[in-house]
Amino acid sequence: MPRFALKIEYDGRPFAGWQAQADQPSVQGAIENALARLDPGFAKGARIAAAGRTDAGVHATGQVAHADLDRAWDPFRLREALNFHLKPAPVAIVDSARVADDFHARFSALERRYTFRLVARRAPVTHDRGMVWQILNPLDTEAMREGAAHLIGLHDFTTFRSSICQAKSPIKTMDEIRIEAHPFPGGQEYRFHLRARSFLHNQVRSIVGTLERVGAGSWAPGQVQQALAAQDRAACGPVCPPFGLYLTGVGYPDPPFPAD
Amino acid sequence: MPRFALKIEYDGRPFAGWQAQADQPSVQGAIENALARLDPGFAKGARIAAAGRTDAGVHATGQVAHADLDRAWDPFRLREALNFHLKPAPVAIVDSARVADDFHARFSALERRYTFRLVARRAPVTHDRGMVWQILNPLDTEAMREGAAHLIGLHDFTTFRSSICQAKSPIKTMDEIRIEAHPFPGGQEYRFHLRARSFLHNQVRSIVGTLERVGAGSWAPGQVQQALAAQDRAACGPVCPPFGLYLTGVGYPDPPFPAD
Repeated sequence: MPRFALKIEYDGRPFAGWQAQADQPSVQGAIENALARLDPGFAKGARIAAAGRTDAGVHATGQVAHADLDRAWDPFRLREALNFHLKPAPVAIVDSARVADDFHARFSALERRYTFRLVARRAPVTHDRGMVWQILNPLDTEAMREGAAHLIGLHDFTTFRSSICQAKSPIKTMDEIRIEAHPFPGGQEYRFHLRARSFLHNQVRSIVGTLERVGAGSWAPGQVQQALAAQDRAACGPVCPPFGLYLTGVGYPDPPFPAD
Repeated sequence: MPRFALKIEYDGRPFAGWQAQADQPSVQGAIENALARLDPGFAKGARIAAAGRTDAGVHATGQVAHADLDRAWDPFRLREALNFHLKPAPVAIVDSARVADDFHARFSALERRYTFRLVARRAPVTHDRGMVWQILNPLDTEAMREGAAHLIGLHDFTTFRSSICQAKSPIKTMDEIRIEAHPFPGGQEYRFHLRARSFLHNQVRSIVGTLERVGAGSWAPGQVQQALAAQDRAACGPVCPPFGLYLTGVGYPDPPFPAD
């Protein structure tokens, strides 16, 4: 059966997360329902596999999943047909490509990229509600960068891992944590760009929640190093809410989409 | 009674428009309900007046209204109290100031500024749904600028005026129509910035809908001139939807807010 990779954008607000669950709206379920309108295998319950199983409320601009279809669809027509059947769910297939039979959206991935949007201003955000995490006061960007530097490289990330994380090992390599300050009307926005081969459950939110404490002056940057070294979940700062988190891209040895 | 000016941001999606209406959610109603929690006059039905009565689905980042209150509130505390009582409506008071008794949010205004966001891409927008007008194919920015140039200055804007417009005269001065192209993931965004002392009902949406036809190549830029000269509503291009429209600012002879 021909295998297709799908690049997916979604607004996580109305979903209980990526993963299909009984009686709960999921991004995976929305896409599988659209596929069921086009393909007999999905009409009988075939499933798709994704690079990152995002939590409830988490968004994506570059999630990747693969699907095995009965027909050798033209990728552009497949994308158009899926987007038609996805309406009105806030999920869009932004690219699609025929891939080799051994391509696996999850297991072939070499890198995941996440961005977390944090907005500091007193007045409640209105246009971006549910799309950012809002706090009241501005943060010290340099202190956050200093704190983040302790997390780069190969470490035991037990401290920054959810207690329900199913990964076999807490040892991961963090390739990059880049923190940018952007103007935001009446306030200030901070974007945290994280890049790694793979992430533990809640790892990004645990790291951003901890770095926010550093930016607010409650933690010294060096305490991030101590928290990491503790290898103890209790040493973590508060886990921040999911609203500001975006899965922005997935890297593969043979990238299925141009300009990835 | 001390008079206060409020600078207001809102997401227009859940509202039937600015203006208070029986049994329909309105931005004015949301703010008056919040004021009623703070002030005896509003508890008894006092009203606020705004610079622009935006339609259903139209957003604002810089709407201005004024209110006469019983107490000489500290403006910062007034803003904080209103934002507390406005929750969970997607309306925020982003600035507030004590103003002179003869300040009138609508009649003192010298200038209104609107921005219209138009996104061209094939895949449906997800994160910005209801916040932009989406079309499928990219537009010719230069052709739109050429068409827009015909509308600058003092003209009879009957062509670009809703049939239910209540303004006494269709003669208005358009000070600026600036069109910017911005990158948008997987597509292209166009922002139309319009500035005038005042606008007719549906004037911005009539102009943007007409310029979109120019950008798509269906109209030659010179046809905008002919449509304007016709002074006939039937000569207008299609009126575009409200979702992409934002009231971004209001100018006053004595600006109540800093950095306006």
